[in-house]
Amino acid sequence: MAASEESLRKALAEKLSAVEAQGNAVRALKAAKASKPEIDAAIEALNNLKLEKSSIEKQLQSAVSGGDGALSREAFRQAAVNTLERRLFYIPSFKIYRGVAGLYDYGPPGCAVKSNVLAFWRQHFVLEENMLEVDCPCVTPEVVLKASGHVEKFTDLMVKDEKTGTCYRADHLLKDFCNEKLQKDLTISAEKAAELKHVLATLDDLSPEALGAKIKEYGITAPDTKNPLSDPYPFNLMFQTSIGPSGLSPGYMRPETAQGIFVNFKDLYYYNGNKLPFAAAQIGQAFRNEISPRQGLLRVREFTLAEIEHFVDPEDKSHPKYPEVADLEFLMFPREEQMSGQSAKKTRLGDAVSKGIVNNETLGYFIGRVYIFLTRLGIDKDRLRFRQHLANEMAHYAADCWDAEIESSYGWVECVGIADRSAYDLRAHSEKSGVPLVAAEKFSEPREVEKLVIAPVKKELGLAFKGNQKNVVEALEAMNEKEALEMKAALESKGEVEFYVCTLGKNVPIKKNMVSISKEKKKEHQRVFTPSVIEPSFGIGRIIYCLFEHSFYTRPSKAGDEQLNIFRFPPLVAPIKCTVFPLVQNQQYEEVAKVISKSLTAAGISHKIDITGTSIGKRYARTDELGVPFAITVDSTTDVTIRERDSKLQVRVGVEEAASVVKSVTDGHRTWEDVWEKFPHHTSGSADD
Amino acid sequence: MAASEESLRKALAEKLSAVEAQGNAVRALKAAKASKPEIDAAIEALNNLKLEKSSIEKQLQSAVSGGDGALSREAFRQAAVNTLERRLFYIPSFKIYRGVAGLYDYGPPGCAVKSNVLAFWRQHFVLEENMLEVDCPCVTPEVVLKASGHVEKFTDLMVKDEKTGTCYRADHLLKDFCNEKLQKDLTISAEKAAELKHVLATLDDLSPEALGAKIKEYGITAPDTKNPLSDPYPFNLMFQTSIGPSGLSPGYMRPETAQGIFVNFKDLYYYNGNKLPFAAAQIGQAFRNEISPRQGLLRVREFTLAEIEHFVDPEDKSHPKYPEVADLEFLMFPREEQMSGQSAKKTRLGDAVSKGIVNNETLGYFIGRVYIFLTRLGIDKDRLRFRQHLANEMAHYAADCWDAEIESSYGWVECVGIADRSAYDLRAHSEKSGVPLVAAEKFSEPREVEKLVIAPVKKELGLAFKGNQKNVVEALEAMNEKEALEMKAALESKGEVEFYVCTLGKNVPIKKNMVSISKEKKKEHQRVFTPSVIEPSFGIGRIIYCLFEHSFYTRPSKAGDEQLNIFRFPPLVAPIKCTVFPLVQNQQYEEVAKVISKSLTAAGISHKIDITGTSIGKRYARTDELGVPFAITVDSTTDVTIRERDSKLQVRVGVEEAASVVKSVTDGHRTWEDVWEKFPHHTSGSADD
Repeated sequence: MAASEESLRKALAEKLSAVEAQGNAVRALKAAKASKPEIDAAIEALNNLKLEKSSIEKQLQSAVSGGDGALSREAFRQAAVNTLERRLFYIPSFKIYRGVAGLYDYGPPGCAVKSNVLAFWRQHFVLEENMLEVDCPCVTPEVVLKASGHVEKFTDLMVKDEKTGTCYRADHLLKDFCNEKLQKDLTISAEKAAELKHVLATLDDLSPEALGAKIKEYGITAPDTKNPLSDPYPFNLMFQTSIGPSGLSPGYMRPETAQGIFVNFKDLYYYNGNKLPFAAAQIGQAFRNEISPRQGLLRVREFTLAEIEHFVDPEDKSHPKYPEVADLEFLMFPREEQMSGQSAKKTRLGDAVSKGIVNNETLGYFIGRVYIFLTRLGIDKDRLRFRQHLANEMAHYAADCWDAEIESSYGWVECVGIADRSAYDLRAHSEKSGVPLVAAEKFSEPREVEKLVIAPVKKELGLAFKGNQKNVVEALEAMNEKEALEMKAALESKGEVEFYVCTLGKNVPIKKNMVSISKEKKKEHQRVFTPSVIEPSFGIGRIIYCLFEHSFYTRPSKAGDEQLNIFRFPPLVAPIKCTVFPLVQNQQYEEVAKVISKSLTAAGISHKIDITGTSIGKRYARTDELGVPFAITVDSTTDVTIRERDSKLQVRVGVEEAASVVKSVTDGHRTWEDVWEKFPHHTSGSADD
Repeated sequence: MAASEESLRKALAEKLSAVEAQGNAVRALKAAKASKPEIDAAIEALNNLKLEKSSIEKQLQSAVSGGDGALSREAFRQAAVNTLERRLFYIPSFKIYRGVAGLYDYGPPGCAVKSNVLAFWRQHFVLEENMLEVDCPCVTPEVVLKASGHVEKFTDLMVKDEKTGTCYRADHLLKDFCNEKLQKDLTISAEKAAELKHVLATLDDLSPEALGAKIKEYGITAPDTKNPLSDPYPFNLMFQTSIGPSGLSPGYMRPETAQGIFVNFKDLYYYNGNKLPFAAAQIGQAFRNEISPRQGLLRVREFTLAEIEHFVDPEDKSHPKYPEVADLEFLMFPREEQMSGQSAKKTRLGDAVSKGIVNNETLGYFIGRVYIFLTRLGIDKDRLRFRQHLANEMAHYAADCWDAEIESSYGWVECVGIADRSAYDLRAHSEKSGVPLVAAEKFSEPREVEKLVIAPVKKELGLAFKGNQKNVVEALEAMNEKEALEMKAALESKGEVEFYVCTLGKNVPIKKNMVSISKEKKKEHQRVFTPSVIEPSFGIGRIIYCLFEHSFYTRPSKAGDEQLNIFRFPPLVAPIKCTVFPLVQNQQYEEVAKVISKSLTAAGISHKIDITGTSIGKRYARTDELGVPFAITVDSTTDVTIRERDSKLQVRVGVEEAASVVKSVTDGHRTWEDVWEKFPHHTSGSADD
């Protein structure tokens, strides 16, 4: 708890007691019929105490609600979301049927932004890194998701309204209760506030029992009905279905795209010429049947994931292109600094890797590439941080894990996870399928290695154990090196040893003549191993939502009577790159506009032609709201003006050149500054200034 | 039945009788101990008859199996599919778990082809036609698919093995039975053959009862076990699931993407400035839980659809860009010509539209655009036809419907459906949701229209019908113009009329004083109507599979000892546009190769660099199998050779120019012929000639 908040809570508690005491004093004076000046003085003291109390209350209110920032964040989000929904960037799905929580449609401009983001992702990752892209189905048979652990563990804890059956996410109810108590009930003690904050911090670690106990302890009831709640129990977040007509083959809609890559490892490794490292990538839909979705595009039931699985020799996680990113500097938030209550600091990536804060070069390389990807899209680098998972957040098998978090009006949002998952996934599918998913390093010359050899003597074992012989043989062969060497030593010293056979569920006596254990030297031509996988996983919808917020701003209209909305999308992601307007409704100008439009189409530049008679100012406002970076206004048959969205600067360009100028800037071959240098400026009263 | 087949069947039947008769004659002669020359002559005659019989059998066999063509088609498909699966164009999904029927993964080259096809689709349709692209979820609540009719009618008829419960598609079993009988049992009569062919032709029209009766009549049993089969019953092909945790909100994985567009009509119409016509488009996954999928990529349980819904005023289906396609000529197969047993004929699109064979200009425009789209991708125009739906294939509400069918080794495959669905879909969702999905045509000045006014006189009706008054009032108000005017005339002539009230289920007597019916003149400012929708719907996986077949060919290796596989993909769809090889392993050449690779990456050209020491011939063979159109071989530090895949011709180009030459050809800015004209030829022993 922040010191100021804690001291304010204490001060408020003291002040409340003082007000009560002074109130009692006033009543006592009145009862004792004290003199009027005496009573008046006491009342004035009481009023002063009350004023002091409400001043402390105000300070505390501001401290717990995050100050005026929270209010303005809320207002900012409202303005952005209103514009986004009104211009059909995205809208709730199936609206005419009153919608379904957690499902959204991208309308035309949103869809264009999404396809630009995905095209850039393909260019930046798949093409530049020569990744093997695959495209697997969403419908997935149960066996695959049993192997991956999703059938057993992909759950959230749920509670039910005991009367209506309405379902809630248990941790959300507890979180809401704590937050509301902290923000609205100023009278709770500093100790109580500290306790609630501790609950919030450890929410993810609570067992179903502990969560249930807290809900009972705090008397939390169903939000809508105030009915009692059931105990929390796990709800699997996968959409279940049935494959084929028999009803006997359960399947799920995949909760992530990664499994499709893992099960294809063998073919992909072969496709890559049996060489490591290599990366496979997949873009596709994933599904999570959230218990109670909220926060718009940030928590949805169906979303687009873009995932990379980079397979690497666990003994060599270097990366040849790592030096290209080592000098990047950006906000990093390592585990240690989170634990000690510090905040994210600007860090040179190379330093974080060389100090071992980031586990290895390949992980570091991808962190750097993700940073470049997000900032090129238009994410503000000052509201982007890479946060390392705490030990309790990370799966037991993971070597290291960093999230790219982007700050939005909802707080810091996890948008990309970059994890070194070690050999976990390939091993899990090897075991379940019986197909070895391994790689081999061929030695340039054979190497001599010592190998343990366990040779059960079947004849003796058969005589001793009859029908159980097979179980004993298998158990002997399954011993690891340590167990085998201990048995060898024991047999040599004692001649007999008790041996637990788990398939029989009991100990059996093993004699020296029943098994031979030795170490032998062998020549090996290759090293066979399960590759480690480093997985950058991108939540495309979350990135797009944060991009919307980072791109949104308002400026007053020309007349100053309203706020205009603008998205400052870079040309790379802008849904429409250019609009073409005839200045006035006039056939000649319309012809010119159509000629320019044709050249833009031929150049593959998405654009819109607007021949309505609306004022130019209004037309600019309309396109600014869609984040269109350039507008071509046709006001003669030889030259046109090109206007840049954010600066509102305009240049004069010949009709034949107009399309190619816009293309060169949107393709990134030159900047608007270059254009501004080269072409004559248009100054005569910009229409929207 | 083809005349030759019918006469062959008859000839075979006669010959079989003759063989039998002659056999009897021989036995009779032997029994009668006839002379040896007599018996020998009879035996020779028998042998001649047998020879004639087997000659007819061979002819018939060839006639029913489609001649040698069928065998070579099978062999061709085997060669193509082997190459496709070996090079990971596509593979069965979840192979290490023995796969799931009807689910396929696209591996790296297949995935690249798919993304090129989709990018071109976006360019050719969405961008060039200014369509409104949307992106809706796959998970769809039941109410939407109830309105569209899918919950009730999206079914196939299924039969079950009565002992094992294994499911089969009823029509497939009957089809297989008929085909097998026709092809393998040469002894069936011409009449029987005609009957089986009739069954095949009318398969889609059979009711569950008729289908069940045929299965019983022919004694068809379960293919694997020969157990008896259940009666056919409908199986819904949608994957069902449950939305949210309550289990009370059924949902389905969408069987098509179109519904997401229809439910958004109102917002999209508004986005388009409340103007018609406009088109919305969507690319996305769709799902059909096929009973027993077969034919590889052609019938799968999950697939990518690209759909366009073009909304248009039903009273004006002209299209401004129609003249651009009217002169195209290609194979068209109108209803009439199918009925009269003719085949598809090369037709000028404009003629088909002007003769009314194609219902309207907009439908014609899209047929033309689809033709351009498919042939630009590399579909052979001689194996592409547009087939009109027969009356019994078409939904009752459809105005017209044409399928783009592509010929493959499986026969003609429906790849794109282009349907004028009239106002059906928007009306269905209007009714179910209560939200009007309509457009309005504003009149430039108000128009006077005559409107029917039905005014029930409630007082009189109340006196006459008491509690039933409301039903009668509603029934009167619901009359259409014809009914109302008839009643008006009858009341004026007879004073009373019998009137059927369906909510009461009986006639009631209506008197003249109970209702006033008149026509009044009103001023209207706009015409409100439900738009028609013209829907081109593309099965992307089917198009890609046909493209694979049309692009595949083989040529002998240099040594002539094996057949090499080549895909003649145009650069537009080729998964990799270019490979870069150093001629020999040599650091200087490798450096040059890396420089060229960097320029290719910067230009956004997908390519592969191969620095293995394999022979150039083998490397060419490897890239030809992936359909890579160009190969750059580095054999000096100043110039390189560029080789074209199909002609195997090579030119010499400077190192700095190499990337831009490849880019200009793959972007379509110049042809290989231009390059061949401009640059010096490389003749010194092409490595693969």
